Amino acid sequence: MSAPVAADLLALDRAAQDLLFRAARTANTFTDEPVTDAQVAAIHDLIRYGPTAYNGQPLRVLLLRSPQARARLLPYVSSSNRAKTAGAPLAVVLAADLDFHERLPELYPHRPQAREWLGDRVARAEQARFSAALQIGYLLVGVRAAGLAAGPMAGFDAAGVTREFFPDGRHEALLLLNVGHPGPDAWGDRLPRLATGEVVRTL
Amino acid sequence: MSAPVAADLLALDRAAQDLLFRAARTANTFTDEPVTDAQVAAIHDLIRYGPTAYNGQPLRVLLLRSPQARARLLPYVSSSNRAKTAGAPLAVVLAADLDFHERLPELYPHRPQAREWLGDRVARAEQARFSAALQIGYLLVGVRAAGLAAGPMAGFDAAGVTREFFPDGRHEALLLLNVGHPGPDAWGDRLPRLATGEVVRTL
Repeated sequence: MSAPVAADLLALDRAAQDLLFRAARTANTFTDEPVTDAQVAAIHDLIRYGPTAYNGQPLRVLLLRSPQARARLLPYVSSSNRAKTAGAPLAVVLAADLDFHERLPELYPHRPQAREWLGDRVARAEQARFSAALQIGYLLVGVRAAGLAAGPMAGFDAAGVTREFFPDGRHEALLLLNVGHPGPDAWGDRLPRLATGEVVRTL
Repeated sequence: MSAPVAADLLALDRAAQDLLFRAARTANTFTDEPVTDAQVAAIHDLIRYGPTAYNGQPLRVLLLRSPQARARLLPYVSSSNRAKTAGAPLAVVLAADLDFHERLPELYPHRPQAREWLGDRVARAEQARFSAALQIGYLLVGVRAAGLAAGPMAGFDAAGVTREFFPDGRHEALLLLNVGHPGPDAWGDRLPRLATGEVVRTL
């Protein structure tokens, strides 16, 4: 079958559309092939250009490479996610820096007062979570851009992971992510997606 | 100059890397060329495959096409953003459906109990904001995939926009977005980005 007509309206070529979105799937199993630090750096070097509020870039990425670090994570992972987290070539904790505003004089130099606009800790934490989530969206696209499969997992004890890995009190764990090459039976059927008419309204 | 070595480690070709991230910029001015409903549908048809927690897909997109709708938005936009919002070919309100769990029996059919896991309204609103922000990340990539420039704006009265455009009490405005072809002097210098060593740590 030919591609949907909508695909032809995009400037991005069809192979890239498939790589990043249409054929990409959340993987539940992985091969043993490692994910290198050079691959992680290449992904970050791409997605760091994605926009964030005040250019604040609050996302922080913690790679759990040692067996000890992985073992510290597992008790906080839901039982249904534990086996895939234990078996993934790379397990990652994605977090927000709740004090990202400290860097704004450097990152947003034309509005140095932005640091003071974000003086309230509760409002700032909302901004940190929101912009970090935008960046996680870019990162999931970036993992796929590297030819790797991403397995994001919301089913975990976020407060526990925050205490375990970020005892400084300035970071908050938002999402766990397994990264690797998809293994056998890596996914089931594609889950349904909402139609454009259910999501987009016009006034 | 040759491309950075990191770019060569990605499966995504260099032209697509540039289109989506490296050469893409947040636009502050736009030409008069319209953004069609077919383009919006093509963008949504691409990015709707991006993953969300429980496949909940809480993002809702409100296109303000009529002069009346645009006029209703402007009082809630910060004074520094008002001119560009008034002049953009398409102004968009991005919102989260805080009751996205009602669709889960259909969207997440293998775990029908997920709807009950999300029974608490406060916790569910957190999930809605987070997944909708992931989807906004995909959407900004998708706008660029269509060869268009995106101008996301966090500087607005979100509570006011929520009241004005979503009086049902079940949606929350998260971000404003201008979309179009970049106009004259659409951007200044690229703002600094954090280096990988400042963002990625290994345990």
